Amino acid sequence: MERIPILKMGEFLLVTIQVDMHDQLALTLQDDLTARIVQHRSRGVLIDISALDMVDSFMGRMLGNIAGMASILDAQTVVVGMQPSVAITLVELGLSLPGVRTALNVEKGMELLTTSVRDAF
Amino acid sequence: MERIPILKMGEFLLVTIQVDMHDQLALTLQDDLTARIVQHRSRGVLIDISALDMVDSFMGRMLGNIAGMASILDAQTVVVGMQPSVAITLVELGLSLPGVRTALNVEKGMELLTTSVRDAF
Repeated sequence: MERIPILKMGEFLLVTIQVDMHDQLALTLQDDLTARIVQHRSRGVLIDISALDMVDSFMGRMLGNIAGMASILDAQTVVVGMQPSVAITLVELGLSLPGVRTALNVEKGMELLTTSVRDAF
Repeated sequence: MERIPILKMGEFLLVTIQVDMHDQLALTLQDDLTARIVQHRSRGVLIDISALDMVDSFMGRMLGNIAGMASILDAQTVVVGMQPSVAITLVELGLSLPGVRTALNVEKGMELLTTSVRDAF
């Protein structure tokens, strides 16, 4: 499997990360995602990581990078579905995911995006 | 990665298949999905296969099984995001995915589900 699918849901994009990321996959995802944000003029990106049992510093940096790139393209990023064990590990590792907002699940994340996109006007 | 995440989107469930299925993963998905349909009283299931470059007879049968189980639980199944090459291969293999409805992408699939759930009353 060489790329992670990006699903368009209204004015937002949804990415479900199910596999361990390696360099090339992360780069491909960044390229695809930025291209899709521009193509669909998306205002928000939801990244679901509920399938991940652990998040290492590489993944943490990648999430931060994606949020940064999306932000420059005027789209907001919300990471959803983080497992409790992942949150514990992140704090223990000192990774605070700066610049990345989180929500409990896709529905809450979508509410958060809808509200903050509306407030942006 | 031992299980495929199932995302709740309103009254529907969304499953994105990104990895090649093997027996255990398929069984786990069937168990999880039926449990979630009952838990959330979901009326529809969207299965996104846009990440798959090929669908073999095992995957075809699994999609059919899921659609059958969901149907008994009063939920409708729509497979979305099929790549053209997959459609060609399926027909060449004589696999017509009986009982499985398809849509171009998640948005069209959601429209289809919304319409047919409403018409069911």
